[in-house]
Amino acid sequence: MSARILIVDDLFPNVKLLETKLTMEYFDVLAAMNGPDALAICAKGLCDLVLLDVMMPGMDGFEVCRRLKNDPNTAHLPVVMVTALDQPSDRLRGLDAGADDFLTKPIDDIALFARVRSLVRLKAVTDELRCRALASRDFGMGDPLALATAETGLNASLLVVEDRASAADRLSSALGQHYAVTVEADPHKALVLATDGAFDLALVSLDLQDFDGLRLCSQLRSLDRTRAMPVVMIAEPHDKARVVRGLDFGVHDYLMRPVDRNELVARVRTQVRRRRFSDTLRGAVQASMELAIMDGLTGLHNRRYLDSHLGALFEEAVQRGRPVAALMLDIDRFKAINDTWGHEAGDEVLRAFADRIRTHTRGIDIVSRYGGEEVVIILPDAEATEAHAIAERIRERVEALPFAIQRDTLKIAVTVSIGVSWRRPEDTSPGDMLKRADRALYRAKHAGRNRVEAAAA
Amino acid sequence: MSARILIVDDLFPNVKLLETKLTMEYFDVLAAMNGPDALAICAKGLCDLVLLDVMMPGMDGFEVCRRLKNDPNTAHLPVVMVTALDQPSDRLRGLDAGADDFLTKPIDDIALFARVRSLVRLKAVTDELRCRALASRDFGMGDPLALATAETGLNASLLVVEDRASAADRLSSALGQHYAVTVEADPHKALVLATDGAFDLALVSLDLQDFDGLRLCSQLRSLDRTRAMPVVMIAEPHDKARVVRGLDFGVHDYLMRPVDRNELVARVRTQVRRRRFSDTLRGAVQASMELAIMDGLTGLHNRRYLDSHLGALFEEAVQRGRPVAALMLDIDRFKAINDTWGHEAGDEVLRAFADRIRTHTRGIDIVSRYGGEEVVIILPDAEATEAHAIAERIRERVEALPFAIQRDTLKIAVTVSIGVSWRRPEDTSPGDMLKRADRALYRAKHAGRNRVEAAAA
Repeated sequence: MSARILIVDDLFPNVKLLETKLTMEYFDVLAAMNGPDALAICAKGLCDLVLLDVMMPGMDGFEVCRRLKNDPNTAHLPVVMVTALDQPSDRLRGLDAGADDFLTKPIDDIALFARVRSLVRLKAVTDELRCRALASRDFGMGDPLALATAETGLNASLLVVEDRASAADRLSSALGQHYAVTVEADPHKALVLATDGAFDLALVSLDLQDFDGLRLCSQLRSLDRTRAMPVVMIAEPHDKARVVRGLDFGVHDYLMRPVDRNELVARVRTQVRRRRFSDTLRGAVQASMELAIMDGLTGLHNRRYLDSHLGALFEEAVQRGRPVAALMLDIDRFKAINDTWGHEAGDEVLRAFADRIRTHTRGIDIVSRYGGEEVVIILPDAEATEAHAIAERIRERVEALPFAIQRDTLKIAVTVSIGVSWRRPEDTSPGDMLKRADRALYRAKHAGRNRVEAAAA
Repeated sequence: MSARILIVDDLFPNVKLLETKLTMEYFDVLAAMNGPDALAICAKGLCDLVLLDVMMPGMDGFEVCRRLKNDPNTAHLPVVMVTALDQPSDRLRGLDAGADDFLTKPIDDIALFARVRSLVRLKAVTDELRCRALASRDFGMGDPLALATAETGLNASLLVVEDRASAADRLSSALGQHYAVTVEADPHKALVLATDGAFDLALVSLDLQDFDGLRLCSQLRSLDRTRAMPVVMIAEPHDKARVVRGLDFGVHDYLMRPVDRNELVARVRTQVRRRRFSDTLRGAVQASMELAIMDGLTGLHNRRYLDSHLGALFEEAVQRGRPVAALMLDIDRFKAINDTWGHEAGDEVLRAFADRIRTHTRGIDIVSRYGGEEVVIILPDAEATEAHAIAERIRERVEALPFAIQRDTLKIAVTVSIGVSWRRPEDTSPGDMLKRADRALYRAKHAGRNRVEAAAA
């Protein structure tokens, strides 16, 4: 994937060298000679990845990285720190600042390109999600980016695939403080575990006996049920070629042996954060879509949802010769509740009413707020007698216990009238069935309320 | 990106050969020995790409491809046809059936891996979008996948970057029947054109004088404003290495010279379809998110939107010391309209009322349906006198012309009462301002309706 790479370095020759290398590989290159300029370019959304020198006068690379990763508008940008130092403590400072990786000068070209390509590809996959989530922020549904950025990356479930007990022990003890670690020596069993279990990340040794750990990585990256899970390889330093290959097909990160405990924790943390970042964005998009079919007050489905689903549901019942029933519910004398106790109390009653209905309906039923205090329930596969029994149970449960509202300071006795109808062979649309439920409801009201009436034969 | 590749071939040795090659490259491989089995595997969502033999007994590869591409559930799967034949007519049949590419036996490994990787990566980017769009289908908001699948890929705007006039002419004449073609010989100007213009696809020659066409491809693939646009390379047969490189960084497809006219049209068509497929899915997700903040009846914003935006807007006005005003509108005697003409007529009046309001408000104003026949308008930067004038104009325009509804068969005279308020220094929240607008509206009603009343000083 081609991409716009920002090189941040205060020394012009360093910038030029990296620029030449990356341009040869068909990347688009931008440069900044100091931290503030780099932050400005990133804030404008002009780049896809940052190659960041550590030692710069004024704001150093750690600080630039920290700011990028703490700003919801730039937290999604991959950052690779570049430095002449090769001290574990510096690697760690960079990773702690949120860097995605660390390259040491002189830069190994293969490692550079492999890392940049891998990070850019992973980013491309989440960019679309981020765009949609941004839209949900514009629609005033909270700020999923800010939420996602605040994620710590701790308290996750990890799967460690390592068949040497001593190595597995070292990994477990290093990670144990922040994570729940499951060790599995058998790669086949590990694949099954990963598919079944709810792991947030997998660490895979590339030095398993009798099995190519890279194969397990590729399976985890390609199976539907595991491809959202980050995978981190653990390899011997001489095994760089396989590491590059793994990065090429989508493995997220790697550690070289001997594994530095702190670096291990830092890299795992970064990957868990990244995964949760995506999950949060996905959840936000999903939630804003769901809002469109939910009634904001009661949390029941809205009429839009009922209208769009009832047709297909009814048609299926006709095709398969199955029954389907409808209940139309209306709270008795609801206007009096509003007039007496105020609109807010009325709203609370509606919410409590919805809750009570929910406990007496199944997942496959459609329960939707139809109008002010009116609710329609569609019962697939329910015969007339069963529908009548359900209606009677709801009526009885509403009457049985007054609704406690305003933090239990006010108890309001509520009753409900319900009209019941069911599909008849001569019905040409679900509207016919609903009309009969409406008429039955009307009769229930006129017969004194707090009653269930079935549609006339 | 690792992925699950489905090999479809009726000859076992062919399956084995491809399986070995792909497994070595860390792909997950599935196999089917005939068309129906292949369709079943694809329908279950078990693979990411299909390598499809043409000549099979029973259902041939063309038919399998056609079915995959016409089914909304599988149309997104890339299909590469594999065959011993190397006749342009067969390539064409495959492409016409919707295949994404064509490989001839004996298979060139480099071409195979480059193509499979490139298609799998492009798919990974749209998969997330497809998942969200699937959810929007589950929510009963129409079927974007079916819409996207029905796309023809014709009638698009193409940018051809070619500096040899004769070659450019041949391309234009081949594409002219179905597409609007713009030829640009200068790659720098082409980049500007692509950034400004609304092209659906770019065809780029890799044999430009004094410029590396691949560089232009990489820029088009990395710039924000062009990266959604498919890019197709045109290359000399000896230039395979650069073609592979282009595919690696995200170029969508290529044609070798001499360019076959029909193959050109077929490949362009496939890419345009693919792009519009993504656009349709993206639009569907966006639309379902927008539903959540829209009032279904009037198309105005709903109260959820007002509640979530008003706070920030008000706060900004406070910070910057800017005015902000609120209008609260209520249709006079709306209940009488419903009672006399029925609910459907009342709904039509509400829609017409919303339309009339819209023509008198600006893009930055928030116009939201507040309750039944009540609308709130927030006017940023508007002083009291200006807000009053706007309210008076709306009142006057509502009164001036009766609302023509039920296809112009019914004209209903409508009037509106409006309360006007504006931010005061002592206001602690926008609720204070709204409350004053509500009280002013109440006075307008009691003073005889069809009036504008300003909040008391």
